[in-house]
Amino acid sequence: MYIQKQISQKAYQSDGFIGNYRKLVRETVIPYQYAVFNDQVEGVEKSHAISNFINAGKVVRGEQPDEEFYGERFQDSDVAKWIEAAAYSLADAPDKELEGRLDSFIDLIAEAQDENGYLDTYFTLAEPDKRWSNLWSGHELYCAGHMMEAACAYYEVTGKRKLLDVMLKNAEYLYNEFVIQRREGWPGHPEVELALMKVYKLTGNEHCLRLAEYFIDVRGQDPEFFPKEQIGRNRVLTMEDLEYNQSVKPVREQETAVGHAVRAVYLYTAMAHIAAETDDDSLLTACKRLWENITKKRMYITGGIGSTGIREAFTVDYDLPGDTAYCETCASLGLMFFASRMLENEINGEYADVMERAFYNTALAGMQLDGKRFFYVNPLECIPGITGKAVTHKHDLTQRPGWYSCACCPPNLARTISSFGKYAYGENETTVFCHLYAGGEVAFQNGIKLSCQTEYPYGFTVVYRVLEGSGKMAIRIPKWSKENVILRNGTQVACESEKGYVYLEIMAGDEVTLTLDDQPYFVYPSSRIPAITGKVAVCRGPLVYCFEGVDNNGDVLSLALKRGGRLSVAETDVSLGNAVKIKAEAVRVSTADELYTAEPPKEEACTAVAIPYYAWCNRGENQMRVWMTERV
Amino acid sequence: MYIQKQISQKAYQSDGFIGNYRKLVRETVIPYQYAVFNDQVEGVEKSHAISNFINAGKVVRGEQPDEEFYGERFQDSDVAKWIEAAAYSLADAPDKELEGRLDSFIDLIAEAQDENGYLDTYFTLAEPDKRWSNLWSGHELYCAGHMMEAACAYYEVTGKRKLLDVMLKNAEYLYNEFVIQRREGWPGHPEVELALMKVYKLTGNEHCLRLAEYFIDVRGQDPEFFPKEQIGRNRVLTMEDLEYNQSVKPVREQETAVGHAVRAVYLYTAMAHIAAETDDDSLLTACKRLWENITKKRMYITGGIGSTGIREAFTVDYDLPGDTAYCETCASLGLMFFASRMLENEINGEYADVMERAFYNTALAGMQLDGKRFFYVNPLECIPGITGKAVTHKHDLTQRPGWYSCACCPPNLARTISSFGKYAYGENETTVFCHLYAGGEVAFQNGIKLSCQTEYPYGFTVVYRVLEGSGKMAIRIPKWSKENVILRNGTQVACESEKGYVYLEIMAGDEVTLTLDDQPYFVYPSSRIPAITGKVAVCRGPLVYCFEGVDNNGDVLSLALKRGGRLSVAETDVSLGNAVKIKAEAVRVSTADELYTAEPPKEEACTAVAIPYYAWCNRGENQMRVWMTERV
Repeated sequence: MYIQKQISQKAYQSDGFIGNYRKLVRETVIPYQYAVFNDQVEGVEKSHAISNFINAGKVVRGEQPDEEFYGERFQDSDVAKWIEAAAYSLADAPDKELEGRLDSFIDLIAEAQDENGYLDTYFTLAEPDKRWSNLWSGHELYCAGHMMEAACAYYEVTGKRKLLDVMLKNAEYLYNEFVIQRREGWPGHPEVELALMKVYKLTGNEHCLRLAEYFIDVRGQDPEFFPKEQIGRNRVLTMEDLEYNQSVKPVREQETAVGHAVRAVYLYTAMAHIAAETDDDSLLTACKRLWENITKKRMYITGGIGSTGIREAFTVDYDLPGDTAYCETCASLGLMFFASRMLENEINGEYADVMERAFYNTALAGMQLDGKRFFYVNPLECIPGITGKAVTHKHDLTQRPGWYSCACCPPNLARTISSFGKYAYGENETTVFCHLYAGGEVAFQNGIKLSCQTEYPYGFTVVYRVLEGSGKMAIRIPKWSKENVILRNGTQVACESEKGYVYLEIMAGDEVTLTLDDQPYFVYPSSRIPAITGKVAVCRGPLVYCFEGVDNNGDVLSLALKRGGRLSVAETDVSLGNAVKIKAEAVRVSTADELYTAEPPKEEACTAVAIPYYAWCNRGENQMRVWMTERV
Repeated sequence: MYIQKQISQKAYQSDGFIGNYRKLVRETVIPYQYAVFNDQVEGVEKSHAISNFINAGKVVRGEQPDEEFYGERFQDSDVAKWIEAAAYSLADAPDKELEGRLDSFIDLIAEAQDENGYLDTYFTLAEPDKRWSNLWSGHELYCAGHMMEAACAYYEVTGKRKLLDVMLKNAEYLYNEFVIQRREGWPGHPEVELALMKVYKLTGNEHCLRLAEYFIDVRGQDPEFFPKEQIGRNRVLTMEDLEYNQSVKPVREQETAVGHAVRAVYLYTAMAHIAAETDDDSLLTACKRLWENITKKRMYITGGIGSTGIREAFTVDYDLPGDTAYCETCASLGLMFFASRMLENEINGEYADVMERAFYNTALAGMQLDGKRFFYVNPLECIPGITGKAVTHKHDLTQRPGWYSCACCPPNLARTISSFGKYAYGENETTVFCHLYAGGEVAFQNGIKLSCQTEYPYGFTVVYRVLEGSGKMAIRIPKWSKENVILRNGTQVACESEKGYVYLEIMAGDEVTLTLDDQPYFVYPSSRIPAITGKVAVCRGPLVYCFEGVDNNGDVLSLALKRGGRLSVAETDVSLGNAVKIKAEAVRVSTADELYTAEPPKEEACTAVAIPYYAWCNRGENQMRVWMTERV
């Protein structure tokens, strides 16, 4: 039985790079998003997310609401993700005022729940007679799922049951509706499945497990379900449309990752969790096949997924254009969730490597360094004049906006940063696992308590001190790290190594030091990816680097990097949140001032300057490019 | 007064490369397209183009039509372009049967014309009460324009006036409707303007000139016109939509080439023709600005224009992706028309160079070598598995289809090939001009008669013999040709040279020999084009080359060409219509079987084989790429 490291106030404290991000989320993002939900921020899209709950509560009590439902149909889920982020942030830093705010807010949510357990402010306020009539895009189950996740988080951190009880009642209602009463259909946007699994894991409630399994098993069994459900609406659903939400065939038969990328990875996350809990081999086989397809054929170097803005979707194998990439922030977060659940099935560094790739690159790029502006879409190239302008590039922006009417990404990122420990640590009957490196303390259920000290991803030494307990410890060695040294109490240890992890015995008082490879390195793409054949990227540790105009005379298009050229680690840049720049031997290519010329370009040696991809777009509108021309 | 070389049976005969294409059009394309129009070809889209005329004729006579209108609203124009192609083909090869077929057909067209001059089978059959109610997309003026062009061609070649009289009557009707009766609006799809100018040039009819000028001047004066006209239809037109058909502001104020590429260049063609005929400086200034914008910032190396399939349109400067390119065949033909009219304003090789680039690459690529299958869209890269499959690449196909429901391109290409002499030759008061090189004979109005012998674009010697007359001759020297020799009667002549043309005196009996540079060469793109920075292409003469899988072990993605490497001219390939291949020094790059790796790829020297771009996709489904990775 694998346990994701559960978080309680005592059990996890962080510092260093991740600690700073958690602090930013706590001090800036959470209050900012709260203000947005309360419509107190000038110049950003109105949310009404909280007033929707107040008004739904009035309807439940038989009163007249003050106003109609406002915003996207799935607005409740933004609030739920915010509660989750706020709850986890309390684990680092107790905050009575925030906790009080959460309690009052949870009261509002409880009041918006129907007697029978139904909870959804959109349908309660706007279409009370249309419940469950639109599983395709009604998002009732999606919103329920996020509120279940919020309930788990708040209970885990504070021990308070109110929201958890609300959502257990909701889950029981759903179980009755779909499993007992046999209501047809399944979630149009997967999410409740993974949430039900979290509730099950936390409470042992069997109906939650059964309902999650039911939704996974029924999905795609009757491909005609959604087309029938949607008759009479704006568009006629074709079989091709069913790929959009992975409903074209039963999940165990799905061969490739298709459709809306966020829906896909949320679905696979639940599948992987069920497989881990129930030893369902057929489900695990499907998960592995879909994992392979994503990570071997459909993933950007930044851990971004979803190559196109058209329906925010996967396309086909090896179609990975940088400039028109979608790479939704939420999709990379979902890929982390999927990876994290795959680790519960098999301890294999491949999963953790991808989890880290997605987090340190696409996920973090989703937020401005000051925590106040957000990218929904994360291209690997930005060329002002084309990006955001050409009709094919409208979805890729040159600047992070302050908020979105469809605001799924910002609170999703906040909750993931706040619960970073869940992805960093885990344990099973025999071993505690360190998947990711983050400064702070962590307490395991088996009695082991560790502290971790590191400047990672800018420092490459990770020091674990065993504060309490004894047993086996597994530390992941990333695939990118070529030179690794592991010391126990200052002495090199010969430790067992398997699938990207080293295993060693520890006891209280031990100090385990891992030193990873700190050298920047080039990365070459498979020549099967047409968009980037012959290109090269620069990385250091888990960080993918990019070249921005502001560091390179305003022009990154005419830069080419020398094969095998020196990559030198430059100074820490305080203005970039202490990011470390890399200098690369390059040539500046001067082409004639014509579109096409027979004159070979002049080339002059120069030094190109790269910054971590996640830190791009913090210094104004600017060219940016990850994959560079190479000179061999 | 500049005269495009008019074609009559005696005046122009061709042989060599162009002659073969004209023969193909005559013997295959014209009969094939006639069969399609008569719905006699199995497995291709039904056309009903001819029965629409028969049925419209019945309606005009007050009889019951046999069936409803069938096909695209602008189906009449496909027929018109076919008549034009067939008419010009008679100039090369008298064909009584074809001429008889044309005559009968013209009778049908005449019968479908209303008493008042109105002619459009769609509105006559399907929406008789909606005439002129939908200038935005009704295509009445567009179809009228194409029929006027057909009328000019048939009259020029055969001297028969019937269709010309029908269309003069139609033009007079339009003049009355728009100029005298002051009907609001202008053509949703520019075309009638350039056609009216052709009729004017041929007949001297002043109303045709006035109406063309009127449509050009009124366009975009009231940007609210189309949004008002379209109220109550499927979509609400915004100001942004008006860019689609260049109606957002008056033409003289338009700064960049925007919107639907075919509409754009058809419009500019008319503008350039009016400027040439009326010495309208403000119009010429606008034409030059738009020409510069296209050819310096928005044109593919193949002379393709229109970077996106979304509304078949221009996007923004330097946005020229190869794999998702639209590059409609018709748009490159339109660019030739525009270039040809610009030459009437100014003899400048720049225009003829672009005309040639568009013709020998994108236009010819629009047709399979056997004349039986056609591309509408001409990407610069084709990767089976992605091309035609990924949602962003659906418009780019891996194989030419046999026909299209919207069949504008095939007959458009046929008529252009059949009238190649119009683009190749011209004259003014003092000089005869040889813009393009095509074997055959040409007679000018000033009494000069030339024969031209050449294997161009595969032979680089062009021999002109002066059969009759004397005077000044101007021959274009293409910019790509670095080494040129001009001999008159075997002796090198010092001739005047200006803006890409050499001028020399000739008299009957003279033989002028031009020898152009036959060396293959590399072309480098501006580093401002993000999609192809650091890439290189191979050309020879006017031909852009591409690399196909079938010549390169099935894989062109892992090929890189050596900077300055040897390019050698290989054998003529009979199976490719006698195309000449080029061999290039290259390396084969082997990347690890992973998406991304820190392992530098292995590189092995090899020889890559290129074929002319226009000949691609004649040997099955296949990778294809124009812009190659370079090794410096």
